[in-house]
Amino acid sequence: MRTQHRRLLGELIGSAGLAVAVIGSGIMAANLSPSDVGLQLLQNSYATALALAVLIAVLGPVSGAHFNPVVSLAERVLDRDARTPGETAAYIVVQVLGCSLGAVLANLMFDLAPVTIATTERADLPRLLAEVVATAGLVTTIFVLVRAGRAALVAPAVGAYIGAAYYFTSSTSFANPAITVGRMLSDTFAGISPGSVLPFVVAQLVGAALAVLVVRALAPASAVPTSGSVTQGTSSPA
Amino acid sequence: MRTQHRRLLGELIGSAGLAVAVIGSGIMAANLSPSDVGLQLLQNSYATALALAVLIAVLGPVSGAHFNPVVSLAERVLDRDARTPGETAAYIVVQVLGCSLGAVLANLMFDLAPVTIATTERADLPRLLAEVVATAGLVTTIFVLVRAGRAALVAPAVGAYIGAAYYFTSSTSFANPAITVGRMLSDTFAGISPGSVLPFVVAQLVGAALAVLVVRALAPASAVPTSGSVTQGTSSPA
Amino acid sequence: MRTQHRRLLGELIGSAGLAVAVIGSGIMAANLSPSDVGLQLLQNSYATALALAVLIAVLGPVSGAHFNPVVSLAERVLDRDARTPGETAAYIVVQVLGCSLGAVLANLMFDLAPVTIATTERADLPRLLAEVVATAGLVTTIFVLVRAGRAALVAPAVGAYIGAAYYFTSSTSFANPAITVGRMLSDTFAGISPGSVLPFVVAQLVGAALAVLVVRALAPASAVPTSGSVTQGTSSPA
Amino acid sequence: MRTQHRRLLGELIGSAGLAVAVIGSGIMAANLSPSDVGLQLLQNSYATALALAVLIAVLGPVSGAHFNPVVSLAERVLDRDARTPGETAAYIVVQVLGCSLGAVLANLMFDLAPVTIATTERADLPRLLAEVVATAGLVTTIFVLVRAGRAALVAPAVGAYIGAAYYFTSSTSFANPAITVGRMLSDTFAGISPGSVLPFVVAQLVGAALAVLVVRALAPASAVPTSGSVTQGTSSPA
Repeated sequence: MRTQHRRLLGELIGSAGLAVAVIGSGIMAANLSPSDVGLQLLQNSYATALALAVLIAVLGPVSGAHFNPVVSLAERVLDRDARTPGETAAYIVVQVLGCSLGAVLANLMFDLAPVTIATTERADLPRLLAEVVATAGLVTTIFVLVRAGRAALVAPAVGAYIGAAYYFTSSTSFANPAITVGRMLSDTFAGISPGSVLPFVVAQLVGAALAVLVVRALAPASAVPTSGSVTQGTSSPA
Repeated sequence: MRTQHRRLLGELIGSAGLAVAVIGSGIMAANLSPSDVGLQLLQNSYATALALAVLIAVLGPVSGAHFNPVVSLAERVLDRDARTPGETAAYIVVQVLGCSLGAVLANLMFDLAPVTIATTERADLPRLLAEVVATAGLVTTIFVLVRAGRAALVAPAVGAYIGAAYYFTSSTSFANPAITVGRMLSDTFAGISPGSVLPFVVAQLVGAALAVLVVRALAPASAVPTSGSVTQGTSSPA
Repeated sequence: MRTQHRRLLGELIGSAGLAVAVIGSGIMAANLSPSDVGLQLLQNSYATALALAVLIAVLGPVSGAHFNPVVSLAERVLDRDARTPGETAAYIVVQVLGCSLGAVLANLMFDLAPVTIATTERADLPRLLAEVVATAGLVTTIFVLVRAGRAALVAPAVGAYIGAAYYFTSSTSFANPAITVGRMLSDTFAGISPGSVLPFVVAQLVGAALAVLVVRALAPASAVPTSGSVTQGTSSPA
Repeated sequence: MRTQHRRLLGELIGSAGLAVAVIGSGIMAANLSPSDVGLQLLQNSYATALALAVLIAVLGPVSGAHFNPVVSLAERVLDRDARTPGETAAYIVVQVLGCSLGAVLANLMFDLAPVTIATTERADLPRLLAEVVATAGLVTTIFVLVRAGRAALVAPAVGAYIGAAYYFTSSTSFANPAITVGRMLSDTFAGISPGSVLPFVVAQLVGAALAVLVVRALAPASAVPTSGSVTQGTSSPA
């Protein structure tokens, strides 16, 4: 398999895995703990944090382990030579596709229809502010670590960050346009109605743009050798 | 003690420890939290994830810390020189024996009969699909990490993976034929009825076979020096 | 941006992030799990521990990641050359400001007024003793690790320490004058009434002073090369 | 301070810290979550696991971070040159003293009498078997890691092991004669009646003796350079 195809396969599998983890654990938690929503969120957050850390540790050397269009876009701005514009575009397409396939797989594993459009409205102002904060924090975490030569910490740090952000933001921290689309396809605990998707994505883009400014202020690129990879120092083992 | 005997002892103790952790924590959780199944699963998952990470960290340098026939079989396909076919066969026998002994020990610690055949039917189609997914993810995690030169991450990654997969799969992620047999021997929270064992094992084998294809696509072996060990880089301290 | 300004920006963002994590997750947990205060604290502790570890890992190379006036003061006593008295003073001002801004941001994300003065009285004798213990443990943890050449462990250790100390101290372990002020500004789960703030801060200073004695006894400075940074070995990437 | 005194101070503080964590978090959890014992144990286990990992990481370079007489005794058998018999004896005295002081401190922080003798009977046969298993696993974990040159993993591994063993053993895994004595001094969640202490200690000694055999079988000492420390490679920074 050619290296570029291998990268896209890594993004596809990782994005699908992320959606399976987020949506599947949400269904499980809501099924098993119907009487306490906090307990549902705790189980959902715990499973997501662990799964995300594993996915990044495993797929980081393959594709950089973005699984998230705003990470790929921020990389384009902060590390222009990491990949071509065409590859960035392909990453984003594959991330959305992967999260959608993951949603279908989660639905099927829990004996639901392959696709059910979610009905949970989420796009009020406090939660849009929360998405700005959640995404800004995520993108800052990734790129300040990379610029400080700490790329090996990205996997546990992003898992921990998202695990915490499920709680400290009122939106439960989607922070990722691809997973936002995927979660539209499952009318379960983690779902989001189609009408809320665009406002969420816009808020995420605003958060990522803020993060680019923060990263540049906190960690000037000149201090660190940049390689062709965002999260793991090398883009591919081959 | 000869090196090969030491390896088998490591697999025996590790497999028994895994079964004690899975079954024992399931009994404890069900005893203490009778009113919320999600809370039971959270305690079961938390204890299993921590115990599994410790077992792999401790026994990795002794035996490779498989504790799982599909891991030993996948190693046979992906890293043919790691051990002889005879040793792979011995590993599998010892894994099933260890998980069975662990089930007995868990039962005894909780004042139950040494063996009680479980009655929980689990083998419906969505949960068999879940076992395919769970096992594919587990085997991919292990071997992509090893091939990327990240064997030191296998212990925390597998613990975290299984902790999450308890939630994101509808089957609660057995992902291991040996533990499936062991769990048949305790009619408690983690139990599985004899009639569900074979379908679960078949699904696990399918998942492992899929994982072999994914590992080959994502991490070509040529990129990394292979040693004689799956999960820890060295098979034995002696 | 000048290096000193970058450090202060790191402390500002980190202190705000800490307050967002502590207060935001407290609001979320109390909203979602109204019937069990222990479950509320578990969610609050879990989110705080993860967020704090991430903030220190990310911002350690930028500013040293104190986010806490007693850490900056203890550094002044234990490592006099780490920074100038003026910078220590500026750190403390920025930490209090950051925690206050974080409280406002948490309130806004959860659709509350920007500032609501907390009404939870906390300053009884057992809880003041608890603050002495909590702060002594925190400061000892940081500086013994640094003096033993283990600065890379400060991020996970401080996250884990605070996660545990939420439970093993009756005060739920504020252990930080800046976050104590910030928590005064949100009349929610994590809030503290203005009348309790000063006694808490005094207890925290006593705990930090005790820790300085313990650190000197356990880890004489002569054994380790000291650098210009408390928690991460280097103060700034530039 | 002389090096030997520093080591004993490290053991004293670490043992006290362990008792504060175990007993304090037990009191907190029982106070806050009165209606679900599993939720109490989850909070107790979570706080203990995190605190124990931090205590070992911080104090390992100071004293070896035993905090447990059976660890000191096992070290005497497995690594005879690590310290003198007199120091081993002093360690054990200080460990029991430290755990007792920690119990008093926990009681005081939660507004209880300094000492209340516990009334919880625990010494039935299944739970004594559980103590054998729990202690054997703990001692095996520590010394196999050390002999494999993985002493840096002892801190997180022991924290994780105990966190899991709270669940997979019916005794909730005391696994330590010093903490057993300390827990006799607080009639709260973690307490143990005086009549159960001796049987528990005997079971722990049996478990440690079994572990010595297992460690010798799995990890022959000749394979690894032994230093004068159990858990961290160096006994003291000075």
